[in-house]
Amino acid sequence: MKCRVCRAPAVIDIRRHNAGFCADCFMKHCRDQVGRAIHDLEMIHPGEKVLVAVSGGKDSLALWDVLIQLGYHADGLYLGLGIGSYSDESGDYARAFARRREAELIEIDIRESYGFDIPSGARAAKRVPCSACGLSKRHLFNQAARQHGYDVVATGHNLDDEAAVLFGNVLRWDAAYLGRQLPVLPASHGFARKVKPLIRLGERETAAYCVLGNIDYIVEECPMAAGNKHLGYKDALNQIEVQSPGSKAAFYFGFLDRVSSLFTPVADVEREGLRPCVGCGEPTTAELCAFCKLVAKATVTQ
Amino acid sequence: MKCRVCRAPAVIDIRRHNAGFCADCFMKHCRDQVGRAIHDLEMIHPGEKVLVAVSGGKDSLALWDVLIQLGYHADGLYLGLGIGSYSDESGDYARAFARRREAELIEIDIRESYGFDIPSGARAAKRVPCSACGLSKRHLFNQAARQHGYDVVATGHNLDDEAAVLFGNVLRWDAAYLGRQLPVLPASHGFARKVKPLIRLGERETAAYCVLGNIDYIVEECPMAAGNKHLGYKDALNQIEVQSPGSKAAFYFGFLDRVSSLFTPVADVEREGLRPCVGCGEPTTAELCAFCKLVAKATVTQ
Repeated sequence: MKCRVCRAPAVIDIRRHNAGFCADCFMKHCRDQVGRAIHDLEMIHPGEKVLVAVSGGKDSLALWDVLIQLGYHADGLYLGLGIGSYSDESGDYARAFARRREAELIEIDIRESYGFDIPSGARAAKRVPCSACGLSKRHLFNQAARQHGYDVVATGHNLDDEAAVLFGNVLRWDAAYLGRQLPVLPASHGFARKVKPLIRLGERETAAYCVLGNIDYIVEECPMAAGNKHLGYKDALNQIEVQSPGSKAAFYFGFLDRVSSLFTPVADVEREGLRPCVGCGEPTTAELCAFCKLVAKATVTQ
Repeated sequence: MKCRVCRAPAVIDIRRHNAGFCADCFMKHCRDQVGRAIHDLEMIHPGEKVLVAVSGGKDSLALWDVLIQLGYHADGLYLGLGIGSYSDESGDYARAFARRREAELIEIDIRESYGFDIPSGARAAKRVPCSACGLSKRHLFNQAARQHGYDVVATGHNLDDEAAVLFGNVLRWDAAYLGRQLPVLPASHGFARKVKPLIRLGERETAAYCVLGNIDYIVEECPMAAGNKHLGYKDALNQIEVQSPGSKAAFYFGFLDRVSSLFTPVADVEREGLRPCVGCGEPTTAELCAFCKLVAKATVTQ
């Protein structure tokens, strides 16, 4: 197979585009896809400061790298979640990337700052670890962006992630979740703008971007995620994608283009009910936000 | 495990109900579920004549049996589709059931009546066999119901079928299909009412109903269906169901309860555009209906 762009021998093929690429054209293809998502959906405006949610995995490091390459002011935020050697190692990858690119990396260690870690906190709060982790990340990324003056939080959710989340939301027809599953959530009610610039790239592509771009990343999945529902949704969609290449992109982009607006009224109603958490001041629909509740439960029992 | 109802030893368990049943209570459970679907969704009114679309498989024979048991006037319609020994054998099962129940079975052989069979017709019309077959069935069941004075056509689509069709429609976000994927389509514009009374039963349950009820049916899948997308959707959902029992029912019934109405305006617009086919008088959005086009293409080349 030859590169679709320059006709050199291809090193990677992307079935849903029915195209192969050489290494250089593939890297450019990735940057173009991210640039197109940012431009078409007005994710980041010129001169804005971007805070990249960095886990040390392929997606967040590829995202950070592309944003730097595209000329954005993009700093990283790494959260120490206290998930044993997985956290130690993923932090090392994030720090090594920042050093090499001379980029700024903010670090928050939840054990040091809040007195718990994800495995024990989830147990104490009787939450699935991925749920405790997700809510902590959303809370801390938003808080840090506002405290440090960033205009926008960028996360490394790729096409596979978003399609799997959409599949889960559709299986339950969760109207509020469907209404806010957008690649751009505008700043409002105490939330910084949140954007997902990798939605036009699959996870095979972000992995290839890192490999071809000499970016070292933590290859293992988080040990807490094993057997979670999200991975089951990904597997099921992968099976469909093999049967009909392009299904995943058609599913996700068809939703964005033609369906998500049907559900936004439900999400809007929920947003209207937001008020500052009495504990931390971050927006919440309850008196105490989910993160403050988690901290309270996690630290009482330690 | 014990029967949920009578505490006798269970012979079947249904994971999404988290319950086991003995044979008698299981048969009653199936009749109750069908009765509940018919009642709640007003599928069939007292005194109406029902035409059951009979393939000779587990679903259609279970449906026919339950409708007779529930006291409905239910006759069968079997279509000879000309799919080799599969058609011969499935017709034998349909006839044997009708004889045993002293029920009336109408038969239409498309080779005799229209001069083609599904395999060669699909080839000639350059259609996937399941597509040519589906449109022929919809056309002929509707036509027969109106010609023979039936109030309603009942088909054996079960929960697995409907969830898989819904999944396919959702993957493409096909608004018109989503808007008319209902268990009851009221009579209108030349269409007889169409109902799916088995939506509360999975295919494992209809199979068990036939086995425990001594109803012989054709066990093989139609040979034309091998590898079709619908089976791929079923496999993917089965994988999800193993991970979270009840997902399939939540997906399908959540759609009916909370979402399908969002899409009905699109289907309504399409229905407004219906007019009689110039060939056969059946409703269509084109000048010549899809069935008449299929007949024309299939018979020209034979």
